[in-house]
Amino acid sequence: MTRPLSVALAGLGTVGGGVLTMLRTNADLVAARAGRPIAVTAVSARDRGRDRGMPLAGLHWYEDPVALAADPGIDVVVEAMGGAEGPARALVQAALAAGKPVVTANKALLAVHGAELAALAEQKGVALAFEAAVAGGIPVIKALREGLAGNRITAVAGILNGTCNYILTVMRERGREFAEVLAEAQKLGYAEADPSFDIDGIDAAHKLAILAALAFGRPVAFDAVHVEGIRGVSALDIAFANELGYRIKLLGLARRTEAGISARVHPCMVPLASPIARVDGVFNAVVAEGDFVGQVILQGRGAGAGPTASAVVSDLIDLARGRYTPVWGAASGALSNAPSLSIETHAGAYYLRLMVVDRPGVIADVTAVLRDAGVSLESMLQRGRSPGEAVPVVLVTHETGEAAMRTALARLDALDAVLEHPAVIRIEPG
Amino acid sequence: MTRPLSVALAGLGTVGGGVLTMLRTNADLVAARAGRPIAVTAVSARDRGRDRGMPLAGLHWYEDPVALAADPGIDVVVEAMGGAEGPARALVQAALAAGKPVVTANKALLAVHGAELAALAEQKGVALAFEAAVAGGIPVIKALREGLAGNRITAVAGILNGTCNYILTVMRERGREFAEVLAEAQKLGYAEADPSFDIDGIDAAHKLAILAALAFGRPVAFDAVHVEGIRGVSALDIAFANELGYRIKLLGLARRTEAGISARVHPCMVPLASPIARVDGVFNAVVAEGDFVGQVILQGRGAGAGPTASAVVSDLIDLARGRYTPVWGAASGALSNAPSLSIETHAGAYYLRLMVVDRPGVIADVTAVLRDAGVSLESMLQRGRSPGEAVPVVLVTHETGEAAMRTALARLDALDAVLEHPAVIRIEPG
Repeated sequence: MTRPLSVALAGLGTVGGGVLTMLRTNADLVAARAGRPIAVTAVSARDRGRDRGMPLAGLHWYEDPVALAADPGIDVVVEAMGGAEGPARALVQAALAAGKPVVTANKALLAVHGAELAALAEQKGVALAFEAAVAGGIPVIKALREGLAGNRITAVAGILNGTCNYILTVMRERGREFAEVLAEAQKLGYAEADPSFDIDGIDAAHKLAILAALAFGRPVAFDAVHVEGIRGVSALDIAFANELGYRIKLLGLARRTEAGISARVHPCMVPLASPIARVDGVFNAVVAEGDFVGQVILQGRGAGAGPTASAVVSDLIDLARGRYTPVWGAASGALSNAPSLSIETHAGAYYLRLMVVDRPGVIADVTAVLRDAGVSLESMLQRGRSPGEAVPVVLVTHETGEAAMRTALARLDALDAVLEHPAVIRIEPG
Repeated sequence: MTRPLSVALAGLGTVGGGVLTMLRTNADLVAARAGRPIAVTAVSARDRGRDRGMPLAGLHWYEDPVALAADPGIDVVVEAMGGAEGPARALVQAALAAGKPVVTANKALLAVHGAELAALAEQKGVALAFEAAVAGGIPVIKALREGLAGNRITAVAGILNGTCNYILTVMRERGREFAEVLAEAQKLGYAEADPSFDIDGIDAAHKLAILAALAFGRPVAFDAVHVEGIRGVSALDIAFANELGYRIKLLGLARRTEAGISARVHPCMVPLASPIARVDGVFNAVVAEGDFVGQVILQGRGAGAGPTASAVVSDLIDLARGRYTPVWGAASGALSNAPSLSIETHAGAYYLRLMVVDRPGVIADVTAVLRDAGVSLESMLQRGRSPGEAVPVVLVTHETGEAAMRTALARLDALDAVLEHPAVIRIEPG
């Protein structure tokens, strides 16, 4: 057995603590799979004095995480601090520049600065590994980058944020509104004190940008992802979705066509029969569609100390074994320069809920607006009667272009009888 | 870009033809992902004259597949002939002995001779890759051997045979009997003319033996797998399963406990709510349970030219990139020698259907037999009445040991009022 792989760990929160625990708990097994022991020898974290419930004696302690990059005794740097800027970015840059491979769980960093970091890694001929950045313990990076590598991937989609999936699941199961369930999730630790990163879809968009880069072999392009979160999803729409045979999920969806690559994160209605509709609670799932393999679905826990550590340690084992893969699956010169498509080019079915005054002629006005905008209806649902009061009207369209839908929405919004902004959810085949 | 990886392809049936097609169709993409072109340069197949619908000009043709191993121009041998013995085994042995890495889709060969072939590969320091041997295009070998490599895997299970899953799915959807659906599947090409390999569970057992070896890090042990097929599953039991909230699936299940490793293939009832219950038709699924990652589920197409080619080509890309993993995930010296547990050590819930004469006292006799054998009942279902004639009685047990169940079954079978051998299906949590 060769000498141990010497690992520096920056950050001892959930991710870093999990990695340290896993490497210690499963040390023998990891050494067998890696062909050599993997040992954390140096760490850096805020507040050295804090009791983290794990012994840190014998580890070289650095106040400044970036200094880990310069330690000649270190083979690999694990960045587990998080954040697209600041010390995380500085450390990853410094480590790569020093010719050290880096393992990170940092999706924000990868999504925002991944192109430039990948170029640096390639220039230095070292690995930048990030299995933990997407879908936690599910080996989806490895699946896309290696396991399905011979396929032309046409689409990749997934439930990429456990917090949103948990909130939507509880809203459905208990028939409750978003704000209440969010508050409860915050109390339970399933949502952050400042939840906007999760619930506004940004975290899912970071992950989708990474998946799209891998699936389609092109540099990561976070700015090209269209993002909508789940704040606007109401208990009423979830109930109507059930009635229509759908589940509402926050999905990330990326697709390659002749015209280019589309990438979007937004609430979707997916048919109950589709596998992704059944992925509930904090679970994540990723669906990839390849020209030879067909559809492959992976699901599991998308977050938490254990699953994230599992992903980081698998990256470390790859490094210990000398298994190398370019950051986006191919050398930079072989990456695609397919253009990004804006959401305006989207076409699909839409769910539309209007709150209208219950009086004669309203439906005729609504359907006239839709007809004039070129929106064709598949079905309509009207529930309850209270003359002169507000009632919901639900419409499901045939395939419609996003532009036509936006025109229609603006006109519907202007109708006297339409009392609130229409609720709109795109329908996906799942 | 370095020189092409030169591949010899033995067998031009579904698998070999698919590989050749994929390497040609996606040549540019494969070269980008592999860092160099991958080119088939030599082939061997029966009947050179046959039109296979793909041009073979320019390829070196060998009558004897084993001769491919000796061709100095060949970097890798792809064995796509199948069969645990004969030319497939001879070729893989010869290639490894000659120091050439081998890629194979041959689960029978791996399951039966995998231990000895792995030893040879290790001795020669070359790869023996077999992503295509289990679950077709789903990258489950890579997931277990690399993606989850830091985990102590406690259980791995799956729907591993598409033919059986297709037959069971059609039986349920159309309420039809096994023999009819099998005959139809044969006509459609979903089942072989001699279907016993699939429907008697042997193919699934080969795959399970491979998964268990990877999951638990031990040499493959096909003989230790308990195997039952689906011939005995009736439309009546499928209907009762539905009524009880279960689906009947042929599962392969391997588990590691303190006592050792159990591996079994048999029809199971799994709760409708479990993800595996929803995997229908020719689809495969694998569930792995790791100590840090929790449960990970992978699903997709388990057979066919495209999915199998996808797996073989991903192995070739690994080889082209120089990514190496020991056959069972660790060097032979680091493998576990955990003992295999026989099916007699199994304990779980059982579904039991008896055809009994509808007359007073029969249920009392049946339940007395179960009580005396130490079998405790969770529920009982009796449907229809026809005094003096045969009626089904369905019993679901609490957790029961296999030995107690066998004792009970022998005694039930001996009762006058029990008219057929009892139908027994193990219930799994899924």
